[in-house]
Amino acid sequence: MNNFSFQNPTKLIFGKGSIAKLATELPADAKIMMTYGGGSIRRNGVYDQVMAALKGRSVVEFGGIEPNPQYETLMRAITLARQEGVTFLLAVGGGSVIDGTKFIATALKYNGDPWEFMVDPSKAVDAMPLATVLTLPATGSEMNNGAVVSRKEFNEKLAFHNPKGFPQFSILDPEVCYSLPKQQVINGIVDSFAHTLEQYLTFNTQSMVMDRWAEGLLQTLVELGPKLVERHDQYDEVANFMLTATMALNGFIAMGVPQDWATHMIGHELTALHGLDHGVTLAIVFPGVMSVMRREKFDKLVQYAERVWGATGTPEEKAQAAIDKTDAFFRSLGMKTRLSEHGVGQETIDFIVDRFRKRGWNLGETGKVTPERVAEILRERM
Amino acid sequence: MNNFSFQNPTKLIFGKGSIAKLATELPADAKIMMTYGGGSIRRNGVYDQVMAALKGRSVVEFGGIEPNPQYETLMRAITLARQEGVTFLLAVGGGSVIDGTKFIATALKYNGDPWEFMVDPSKAVDAMPLATVLTLPATGSEMNNGAVVSRKEFNEKLAFHNPKGFPQFSILDPEVCYSLPKQQVINGIVDSFAHTLEQYLTFNTQSMVMDRWAEGLLQTLVELGPKLVERHDQYDEVANFMLTATMALNGFIAMGVPQDWATHMIGHELTALHGLDHGVTLAIVFPGVMSVMRREKFDKLVQYAERVWGATGTPEEKAQAAIDKTDAFFRSLGMKTRLSEHGVGQETIDFIVDRFRKRGWNLGETGKVTPERVAEILRERM
Repeated sequence: MNNFSFQNPTKLIFGKGSIAKLATELPADAKIMMTYGGGSIRRNGVYDQVMAALKGRSVVEFGGIEPNPQYETLMRAITLARQEGVTFLLAVGGGSVIDGTKFIATALKYNGDPWEFMVDPSKAVDAMPLATVLTLPATGSEMNNGAVVSRKEFNEKLAFHNPKGFPQFSILDPEVCYSLPKQQVINGIVDSFAHTLEQYLTFNTQSMVMDRWAEGLLQTLVELGPKLVERHDQYDEVANFMLTATMALNGFIAMGVPQDWATHMIGHELTALHGLDHGVTLAIVFPGVMSVMRREKFDKLVQYAERVWGATGTPEEKAQAAIDKTDAFFRSLGMKTRLSEHGVGQETIDFIVDRFRKRGWNLGETGKVTPERVAEILRERM
Repeated sequence: MNNFSFQNPTKLIFGKGSIAKLATELPADAKIMMTYGGGSIRRNGVYDQVMAALKGRSVVEFGGIEPNPQYETLMRAITLARQEGVTFLLAVGGGSVIDGTKFIATALKYNGDPWEFMVDPSKAVDAMPLATVLTLPATGSEMNNGAVVSRKEFNEKLAFHNPKGFPQFSILDPEVCYSLPKQQVINGIVDSFAHTLEQYLTFNTQSMVMDRWAEGLLQTLVELGPKLVERHDQYDEVANFMLTATMALNGFIAMGVPQDWATHMIGHELTALHGLDHGVTLAIVFPGVMSVMRREKFDKLVQYAERVWGATGTPEEKAQAAIDKTDAFFRSLGMKTRLSEHGVGQETIDFIVDRFRKRGWNLGETGKVTPERVAEILRERM
């Protein structure tokens, strides 16, 4: 097992009716900026629940944070927060709203152009306190200190971590998910599944217990996937999905293990260039990474095939089953897992590979996903 | 899934060579009281490693905290800490030293006789900051806010939780476990196993993901048990054991599930009255609780038998296998799992049942472990 340091201070408040707890969890004297997205919270009742809990508080609203939150939008929020003397940020939404709010929180404690800490994340060291009300299980942002922000003028989508960026608390009420569009639920299943694989499907470091935990998340998603595609208004099913999505990226299963993240880095490019949903990009790329990196990941592919998919046969057959079963699982949810199905062609591959070369990026748990192998991965997924 | 609130602020610093990190983790201006046990840390090099990391610091030592830490001993530590103006407690040891140090930390911020918050734990609300260097994987105390303290004059062993009682950080270096006596390793395996069962083997609340995680801990212990009995100086095996023991009682697997703890409460009495090791009492009592509460726990017994022990057959056969396999696992580690093997007889059963009656205790996840059923459980384990 690798040496590690783990700490996660976020308070998780989970279950039906939990939004009302905002009233007691928020600091009494806070000047609150409530951030949200495109307005779905006004239609599904979440806005009203939040406002009822905030009654009597000093609140300024900032709506309109888009999927793949944009630098330009967030800069307007920062200006507003400064004008209003905001002291506490409350993100009400999914991963995009929460990620955007982490950017705002960091920028409000940063001297200089905020894009600087996107390019060099080591500069992100302080943040205004924030909390969240989660409306979409997927990214895990509600219980970690990372965020991804896009900048249209550069066609870029970059990630950063801020040690002070953990939400102070996050409220997860599974019932708010009942009104989600089905595609968002499917994206969330794939996102959680991919987050788990990124921390599991690497080389073997004998982290027996964390392997078991990662497999537990994958098994749960495999079991829930078809049910959630059918309907997502059954409390226990949605609650388990919501909790699994949070546990998939809050540092728990990362203890003592190497991490990959090549799929995410490649996927971010597909989103930046073609606007594909994050979950869709992961469903496209992951089977390709598994296939091209088969030798490096061989032992884990076999273990994953055995324990998550019940595969039998020779080790080579199991490794192949791992790849095939993963692709088939994503497709069974209704995902199109080939680039050509999304109208993405060779010129995009060339652009991404060229960009990674210029950035000097060698990705993956051992840095062996070179730009050449990225090309191979994407060609394999045409 | 049940509603829940979860927060665990402890920083976990894990891996070989980690004790040196004390130098940077402890607050610069702290007046430190280092607490420890019977002196094994002087023989195995831990004392020297800690002292090297504390060089130049203001440190007062308090050794001699015994297994099942005693009120009388801890009161002397409290007096010393007050005399010396201590501001930070560093526990170096196993669960007893850490639990005792939590009592000291709470007492130092409590006005009145500290035994009051043992009798009424709701009075434990503040604590002096503490941190730990763990030397014995077992209790999970290094990453939770609970503690158990004994008082000889009353023959009592009681538990309390303090919301401020989490260690600020805990250092876990698996290599310090190599010199442990074998019996302590065995006790630790059983303790971790029992902690997991207490949060898992209840009635079914459809907490799919937490069931998987608990099963992952149990599977890891089943796999490691025989290896650790053989030898406990293989890094990855000891590291996985150490991490599993911490994960078994840090609140992670408790999210959204009911909890039992009848076995622990009965076991505490056997320790208070006969001085049996905590782990030994759990190995005796747990199969009895499973057997007597078979109807209430039936669905979970079946699931546990299937997933952890690979049991087949009818549901009734699986439930029986769950009980038999658990007892056999404890015995395979070298545990004596019958009261008669420890010279404990009917008079002890009568005493415990009478005491629980007077306390008005109905234990277990549904309060159905009445004093009468405690009698039945203990008779079954004669």
